Amino acid sequence: MKKINSIKFHEKYKGKLNISSAVSINSKDVLSAVYTPGVGEVCKQIHKNPRRLYDLTIAGRTIAVISNGTAVLGFGDLGPKAALPVMEGKSAIFKELAGIQSYPICIDEQDPKKFIEIVKAIALNFRAINLEDISAPSCFEIENQLSKQLTIPVVHDDQHGTAIVTLSALLSALKLKGNPKISIVINGAGAAGNAITKILVHASKYKLINAIEIKVFDTKGLISNDRNDLDKYKQELANITNQNKFVNFDKGISGTDVFIGVSVKGVLNTLHIKSMNEKPIIFAMANPDPEIIPNDALSAGAFIVATGRSDFDNQINNALAYPGMFKGLLTSNVKSVTIEHKLAVAKAIYEYNLPNLTTNNLLPSLLDKNVPIIIEKEIINLK
Amino acid sequence: MKKINSIKFHEKYKGKLNISSAVSINSKDVLSAVYTPGVGEVCKQIHKNPRRLYDLTIAGRTIAVISNGTAVLGFGDLGPKAALPVMEGKSAIFKELAGIQSYPICIDEQDPKKFIEIVKAIALNFRAINLEDISAPSCFEIENQLSKQLTIPVVHDDQHGTAIVTLSALLSALKLKGNPKISIVINGAGAAGNAITKILVHASKYKLINAIEIKVFDTKGLISNDRNDLDKYKQELANITNQNKFVNFDKGISGTDVFIGVSVKGVLNTLHIKSMNEKPIIFAMANPDPEIIPNDALSAGAFIVATGRSDFDNQINNALAYPGMFKGLLTSNVKSVTIEHKLAVAKAIYEYNLPNLTTNNLLPSLLDKNVPIIIEKEIINLK
Repeated sequence: MKKINSIKFHEKYKGKLNISSAVSINSKDVLSAVYTPGVGEVCKQIHKNPRRLYDLTIAGRTIAVISNGTAVLGFGDLGPKAALPVMEGKSAIFKELAGIQSYPICIDEQDPKKFIEIVKAIALNFRAINLEDISAPSCFEIENQLSKQLTIPVVHDDQHGTAIVTLSALLSALKLKGNPKISIVINGAGAAGNAITKILVHASKYKLINAIEIKVFDTKGLISNDRNDLDKYKQELANITNQNKFVNFDKGISGTDVFIGVSVKGVLNTLHIKSMNEKPIIFAMANPDPEIIPNDALSAGAFIVATGRSDFDNQINNALAYPGMFKGLLTSNVKSVTIEHKLAVAKAIYEYNLPNLTTNNLLPSLLDKNVPIIIEKEIINLK
Repeated sequence: MKKINSIKFHEKYKGKLNISSAVSINSKDVLSAVYTPGVGEVCKQIHKNPRRLYDLTIAGRTIAVISNGTAVLGFGDLGPKAALPVMEGKSAIFKELAGIQSYPICIDEQDPKKFIEIVKAIALNFRAINLEDISAPSCFEIENQLSKQLTIPVVHDDQHGTAIVTLSALLSALKLKGNPKISIVINGAGAAGNAITKILVHASKYKLINAIEIKVFDTKGLISNDRNDLDKYKQELANITNQNKFVNFDKGISGTDVFIGVSVKGVLNTLHIKSMNEKPIIFAMANPDPEIIPNDALSAGAFIVATGRSDFDNQINNALAYPGMFKGLLTSNVKSVTIEHKLAVAKAIYEYNLPNLTTNNLLPSLLDKNVPIIIEKEIINLK
């Protein structure tokens, strides 16, 4: 099959979402119900009882996919316009895979405080908010504040969705290796790296994995307690991973078993892989260009390679988790994704894929519509 | 035919807009084009050349319908939540009648300056902005500032759409009366009243109508130069209508020929109508409840009665104009609706309806899909 040219594809459709009227407006009677005078009664009911908004308008069944474009895929700060195609893609996937309606809004505001105010001012139009492609550390403050101040779920999917799917894939990879003790390297301490670190620390605590060591690296090297340049979020990572002695990435990766990259194109080379323990697990998840090309990693001795892309085997992408995650939050009327949700969902995805598990098939397909259903159930069960 | 219960109707559909993916995401290949990795190239192109946003995303073909809910229909300040059903209805009409995609955003912000900042921050997602149900005088400042500061069309439809359709209907009514000299009363000096006054002053100047007098009233009485409580927008109305001596509404309406109400329910009574000249023209356009019930007006001697509602004859509603107006702006790449546009469009709508003109049929139906096409052409012709 000929590969689709994504630029031509986007030019052809001029964006990926179509909006239509729920009813055909073909009579004065329908018009009177949709618009004036009928709509007047609807306005008055909502004014009297604001909760009715969710029964009588799309606010009750539409999720906002919101970004400021400060961390677009693995490219960094491309700005809000360049982020819109990603948000649209997320909306298209929401609908196609989980039947959930959503709408993308990119906001031209980098200041976290002002960004929060804008999101709060438009939140009434939506039943939940999916934050996306917002750079760390602002993303943490933004998610925290919005979660506190709004009554609807606010989830920064780059953190939680990515963490869930990474753990699922890791459970699969470790199963294939016989569940050994492992030393893990996480490269990238942004939104995804932060959440992946936390889920793996918890997964280890609950014996889902057997991690003897977790090391997180940013562009300067190991996130460790002897550094004095850490913000509070990175300091927390140093604390929970018990790393006290700085080492650079080239040295730090030596003798480890698992590489999890949520960083940028090309930062992992074959020498790094050869310095790792035998048959390492390589998750090179930078998007759209991974930290290393899968074939290079395999030829350098990797046992398993995964990326974030749809066109390679083993796609580790938050898109596997977020449609079901939001479905679960909405169905169960739960406001936030807890660590318990995340562990349970990751395990459920892993278990669902067990009958088909191979080194080239760590995860169910993004296109598998059973996955959102399984995730939704887990969240409902844990309510 | 049984009348549709608008509450049940809204409950059934849970809002009036459906969002779908432009393509079926049914293969890894489509997924790779819609999402990562394919979307990466799209992001990079937009980053390099921001104008590409309009070719590659829904921003190029989606209009925002934006309100803060400070003047919801004729109800006043019901707040942004209660305004959402109206904005959704406008979006449904945009799509159904003119094939234009739009999305409603209600903003929880009353302060005009902050409101402007929020709209500016989200404007990138849209090809044009339809402002709606924003109270005067903020609406004037908001439209002016946004038009100046943004590169896309920003149109406060309550002003311009309503003015156009009112003039069309008035041309029709006057034709039926043999184009007499008239004295006009406009009751309500908000967004719609302001724009109607201006279009009628211009229509008179260009001899489309033969107005010997135009009097605008707010809740206190005639907008006249001897008042010292007028804001600059109302002062402008006093100036252009050459009104120098205050009179209250009850007295002011006496001996006039045309009543145009863009105010609130019930402010016009049968005594008012009886005090007008013979066979007056009554446009009672408050929504959803008109200034007087049509049958009452007719029995008091009105020659013609029109309202804003879909369930009475002679609906004067901006919905007749705005789909075509925006279509014209987008097709001709014009940023603002000028007075020339408005006069030309009003005349074109009137002329289109001439073959079917009766006292009960002043205007084409809102459902007539030729109207947006006619309006679009007028705007293109005047480019």
